[in-house]
Amino acid sequence: MLSIRDQIARRSLTPGAKLPSIRAVARTMRVSKSTVVEAYDRLAAEGVIRSRPGSGFYSAAPLAPLSLAELAPRLDRAIDPFWVSRQSLEAKDEVLKPGCGWLPGTWMPEEETRRALRSLARTKDMAALTDYGTPLGLGSLRQLLSRRMAEQGFEARPEQILLTDSGTQAIDLVCRLLVQPGDVVLVDDPCYFNFLALLRAQQVHVIGVPYTPAGPNLQLFEEALARHRPRLYITNSGLHNPTGASLSAGTAHRLLRLAEDHDLIVIEDDIFADFEVEPAARLAALDGLDRVVRIGSFSKTLSASFRCGYIAARRDWIDKLTDLRIATGFASSRLSEELVFCVLGSSGYRKYLEALRMRLGSAMVAVAARLRSLDIEPWVMPKAGMLVWCRLPHGLDAAEVARHALSEGVVLAPGNVFSASQTASGFMRFNVAQCMDDRIFAVIEKAMRQAA
Amino acid sequence: MLSIRDQIARRSLTPGAKLPSIRAVARTMRVSKSTVVEAYDRLAAEGVIRSRPGSGFYSAAPLAPLSLAELAPRLDRAIDPFWVSRQSLEAKDEVLKPGCGWLPGTWMPEEETRRALRSLARTKDMAALTDYGTPLGLGSLRQLLSRRMAEQGFEARPEQILLTDSGTQAIDLVCRLLVQPGDVVLVDDPCYFNFLALLRAQQVHVIGVPYTPAGPNLQLFEEALARHRPRLYITNSGLHNPTGASLSAGTAHRLLRLAEDHDLIVIEDDIFADFEVEPAARLAALDGLDRVVRIGSFSKTLSASFRCGYIAARRDWIDKLTDLRIATGFASSRLSEELVFCVLGSSGYRKYLEALRMRLGSAMVAVAARLRSLDIEPWVMPKAGMLVWCRLPHGLDAAEVARHALSEGVVLAPGNVFSASQTASGFMRFNVAQCMDDRIFAVIEKAMRQAA
Repeated sequence: MLSIRDQIARRSLTPGAKLPSIRAVARTMRVSKSTVVEAYDRLAAEGVIRSRPGSGFYSAAPLAPLSLAELAPRLDRAIDPFWVSRQSLEAKDEVLKPGCGWLPGTWMPEEETRRALRSLARTKDMAALTDYGTPLGLGSLRQLLSRRMAEQGFEARPEQILLTDSGTQAIDLVCRLLVQPGDVVLVDDPCYFNFLALLRAQQVHVIGVPYTPAGPNLQLFEEALARHRPRLYITNSGLHNPTGASLSAGTAHRLLRLAEDHDLIVIEDDIFADFEVEPAARLAALDGLDRVVRIGSFSKTLSASFRCGYIAARRDWIDKLTDLRIATGFASSRLSEELVFCVLGSSGYRKYLEALRMRLGSAMVAVAARLRSLDIEPWVMPKAGMLVWCRLPHGLDAAEVARHALSEGVVLAPGNVFSASQTASGFMRFNVAQCMDDRIFAVIEKAMRQAA
Repeated sequence: MLSIRDQIARRSLTPGAKLPSIRAVARTMRVSKSTVVEAYDRLAAEGVIRSRPGSGFYSAAPLAPLSLAELAPRLDRAIDPFWVSRQSLEAKDEVLKPGCGWLPGTWMPEEETRRALRSLARTKDMAALTDYGTPLGLGSLRQLLSRRMAEQGFEARPEQILLTDSGTQAIDLVCRLLVQPGDVVLVDDPCYFNFLALLRAQQVHVIGVPYTPAGPNLQLFEEALARHRPRLYITNSGLHNPTGASLSAGTAHRLLRLAEDHDLIVIEDDIFADFEVEPAARLAALDGLDRVVRIGSFSKTLSASFRCGYIAARRDWIDKLTDLRIATGFASSRLSEELVFCVLGSSGYRKYLEALRMRLGSAMVAVAARLRSLDIEPWVMPKAGMLVWCRLPHGLDAAEVARHALSEGVVLAPGNVFSASQTASGFMRFNVAQCMDDRIFAVIEKAMRQAA
């Protein structure tokens, strides 16, 4: 049976038409006047009807529908650093996304998230619900992060930590502070595609250094330092995106020496830290936040719907970054910070992480086997995490394969979106947590035949 | 009585000390083992203690305290465009903030906010809790905004609306798309101080045009167009910040003609729209989103803790802005968008707004009278909203007065932080909703004597 609200809404389809009086509706529908008043109020608040004081209620213009262009995948998009993000973020529920860089909703800590929301709904601290956050962000969350970093072997005091809306915003702010248009920035080749998109927005020159299973190729790294005099290097050390490789201790040490010798600043984006079973080497731990800036976020294992990331860096940079964030975003989300703190500090989250690591470990083994059966070979078997970087068979062009798969409702991540030098056309990144549906492998097999 | 958690936490003050076994604690405290396990788990999750598999629990290093510098007002800060933001955002609860630009928490729609959080905690749509938002942001919220703009007389289809993390981020994105370092940008003089901070981050030249009670001085505006060839003009039309004045229809029309003749783009920041009783002229309505970009947010009347703003603009600009937002922030907060939609669409919010406008109207009259009794004279009596721009008596320097007041725990907003030309040293902006405490007027009176 339709609610009173819906019945009234159905009758108000002609824009501008006057609606029957509250008394008349109550009589016709056999409900109390207060029920009708409540329904009218709700519809007025939603904009379905409008009240004109002294004259009654009128039907408003209908809601504009969302455009078709927005609702269907755009097959014509160029395969550039935005391709995977746009296709993944725009994808409807029925689209399969082995190419996307996050966990399915059902793999996320649902119960902890709901509990955090309920707890915040009851808070006595009104400021948490309505106020702007403080310039650096929630003190208790910064204290918790400070402790976590102490456990990783380096000191970042709470006032050296700036909370941001996301890891991406964190990197953007650091770039805006430290580089100028025209500067040279080093990235790994391949690297997370959005680094390339972000650096394009910064109008800097991007140089890719080939990545090995133990970190960047140091000989080529040194040559790039000498030749291009870059100001900045951006990397993931824990679990590298897209390769799933981990930085070795030796490479980390030599890389940092090179950075010191050439006065290079390093952004270490540690977004996949919580996936690790055994922590890999960390540049921030070796350097102690002198020339290394540590970035992190909670999007991958806690929630991407609450936006919260952080920057840990030298105090003088944090002070300038805080002003820059006020200028360009005013404040971070107090709400998100409270929710993240609430979930991070719960025992359920720690147990969830343990179970998640196990689940991802099994998925990695199973999915690698499925991929190998299609002659798609992991470049390196990751120690943890959800991402695996694979070589396609027979010199297939990954972009071609991805285009065919997209038309079948499967979003893949072709290699060249990750490659500054465009030398990864034979590679593809897979997210094992997003590969649980058998249809994916059938679509890939077909797409590879079509692209051959 | 202390909780088990607190009792255990108290005993774990020596870093590295081994904690008693679960069985021993249960016996000593006369609680069940599962109660102790729960408490240990919670403390481990918070990082207060650490578990070593097979060995038991150990006390972790204590949390780093927040620094004193963070907890006390910084009296030494230069009075620049960041001054009011930093002092207001950093202020502890006991600080009085007649200079800040938002409502006290107790004036915000608390019940609607709590209800929205409870409703989201129960949602069946897991994506709302854990997923990234779509590139443009929540479709239903964009449809609602589209309808609201239709009611203001101009068409902005849902695909012409990009949701952002804040109004400030919205302006920053538009500037990053449309201006280059070195370009000239016009602002009102005085204008919202954070426009000046944001434009400094953009590395553009800022030219202020004197503001009159009906909008910018058009003769000087035209001279500035001819002389400086600006690319962009940023303004508030509804209720102007800091003056509380409203753009007249005639000024709006002539201003837009000048913009057309000189190929000027206009950002209309409509953040105070929900305060208005009678809507003022809107450039976006006259122009129909051709060269005017409409910006808005929900921080002032809904919540500043959920971060959500929007850009309504030409479809081709929205497409580029969407890519830019992915590059520099990845996604907006799905959570914030759901909460904003939930509150905006409630009948309670509409009633809250009606009551708020009445309450602000009374406060405006009362506070203006109190200020006049101190010879502080409103430059124009605002038709609505919370802000009033006032001239201090006897050529007093507002920055001096503000410094004295800050040392007494009162944050004021001295005129020159709003002035590109630094010609507003004799003015001050007051927020009438933040002036409910009698101590404020006593402190201002004393500070004016000290500054005289």
